[in-house]
Amino acid sequence: MPTTSSTTYPPATSAPAPTIDAYLAATVDGLDIPSNLKEALRYSLLGGGKRLRPVLAWHCCAAVGGNPADSLPAGAAVELVHAFSLVHDDLPAMDDDDFRRGRPTLHKATSEAMAVLAGDGMLTLAFGVLVQKSTHPSLAARLVAELALGTQAMIAGQVYDTLGGLPAGLSDQERLDLIHRNKTGALLRAACRMGALCGHASERAVHLLSHYAQAVGLMFQIVDDVIDVTQEAHHAGKQTGKDAAKGKLTYPGLLGLDASRLAIARLEGEALDAIAPLGPTAAPLAELARYMAVRTH
Amino acid sequence: MPTTSSTTYPPATSAPAPTIDAYLAATVDGLDIPSNLKEALRYSLLGGGKRLRPVLAWHCCAAVGGNPADSLPAGAAVELVHAFSLVHDDLPAMDDDDFRRGRPTLHKATSEAMAVLAGDGMLTLAFGVLVQKSTHPSLAARLVAELALGTQAMIAGQVYDTLGGLPAGLSDQERLDLIHRNKTGALLRAACRMGALCGHASERAVHLLSHYAQAVGLMFQIVDDVIDVTQEAHHAGKQTGKDAAKGKLTYPGLLGLDASRLAIARLEGEALDAIAPLGPTAAPLAELARYMAVRTH
Repeated sequence: MPTTSSTTYPPATSAPAPTIDAYLAATVDGLDIPSNLKEALRYSLLGGGKRLRPVLAWHCCAAVGGNPADSLPAGAAVELVHAFSLVHDDLPAMDDDDFRRGRPTLHKATSEAMAVLAGDGMLTLAFGVLVQKSTHPSLAARLVAELALGTQAMIAGQVYDTLGGLPAGLSDQERLDLIHRNKTGALLRAACRMGALCGHASERAVHLLSHYAQAVGLMFQIVDDVIDVTQEAHHAGKQTGKDAAKGKLTYPGLLGLDASRLAIARLEGEALDAIAPLGPTAAPLAELARYMAVRTH
Repeated sequence: MPTTSSTTYPPATSAPAPTIDAYLAATVDGLDIPSNLKEALRYSLLGGGKRLRPVLAWHCCAAVGGNPADSLPAGAAVELVHAFSLVHDDLPAMDDDDFRRGRPTLHKATSEAMAVLAGDGMLTLAFGVLVQKSTHPSLAARLVAELALGTQAMIAGQVYDTLGGLPAGLSDQERLDLIHRNKTGALLRAACRMGALCGHASERAVHLLSHYAQAVGLMFQIVDDVIDVTQEAHHAGKQTGKDAAKGKLTYPGLLGLDASRLAIARLEGEALDAIAPLGPTAAPLAELARYMAVRTH
């Protein structure tokens, strides 16, 4: 089990965040779009957040020997997809959330119509950024393919989680794994793979980092579920206890809290093992996995 | 002024429609996504429609000497964007339409949540199709760039039309042109340019077809406005008179019916002039422009 309980974002992993924020801001500011739409994009995209996905892309790029700044378009693209999904998921017809990161959700701050369109705009821009900013067309095409697959899986996971459509005959555990491998895991995996590709990774390195991402992605979700059960709302920064209130399937609900914590430790070990062959360039990824295992919000 | 009043889809332009439909159906059927999401995609994408955008891509590809079947991924991608935009535009928070093409809109047939997610899924799939099906990465990257620009402009046009954000100091005519050049024109233009690119068009041919598309796109919107004013709902296949009821700026409202009809004829001439240098391979595009000038629904 992890022995530290610090929840401060670790320095090696938070270092690129200002660079990523500046890149995202410049990307939105450069758009020739309606002023109110641009404001909505800035509100959704630049209103805080840990930038986990671009940070992963950054460090995966560095881990394979690439220049991490080369991962910025890919990281921005994945962050745009993440931000779009939050805006649409918060809509009244979906999760109906009024607050996120301590501020009104976009549809509360503007209108439902703007939230629908701004989400659509961010998803579109995600793909646009990949081909406008990446110089090499064959890399750009591969990144688009990775992002499309990851986003499609994320949407599939959201459907499974909220609207059904699951294959018949699955156990509760299999259903939960299928939901989260798609809903959260696929985009984290895309972030890692895309970052590695931006660093011109070998196929073996891409494979190792995919494995890392899968472990970290599942761990991320179990930690989220545990936080939902155990933390106070003001600490978690969002409404908690909602899953149980809705009767949703969760890891603590299915396995119990102790087994969930053991699963987190096991997945942390898996993630660290996966990147061990990459050597010291992967140290920030190890640090990030350890942080994610013990975060409390 | 056009002398024919036929509204049947002309044979040279409708010929590829079954091929396009089959391609779209195969694209959706091949997806590994939840069964209910797949049903929603089939419902939205395969429920009729003229396939105007893929038909344009097909004939632009042929007009520059390409094999028109090479335009199918691009045509499918543009149709997916068009279909996604209809599903989101129909939502209660947007245009709040209950019927489209004589059937319940997707959110009425399923749920609002499914309509949001299926729209997101179609937009994502549009970009995925371009990189999975196009063999040449540099062509794929260029197509993604064209589609992202066209889609972004379409969303901007929808914002201008329904939520404001227009630049200050525009005349009514300039506002109307800006709205429709973005809302309808940009995606038709993307369809034409992408089709031409799939046929390995010269930059000059792409330019000519862009000009054709711009004229046809604006004409399409003016015809739509005229239909809204003059036709009965059962003929137009959707609710009519809605624009006037909402006090929306329209071409007949701004220019009057006679001047709108003259503008249609002028734009038809512009479209035909633009493609004249391409010679007989562009004959179906000429036929399509003539048809679009006289369509009544």
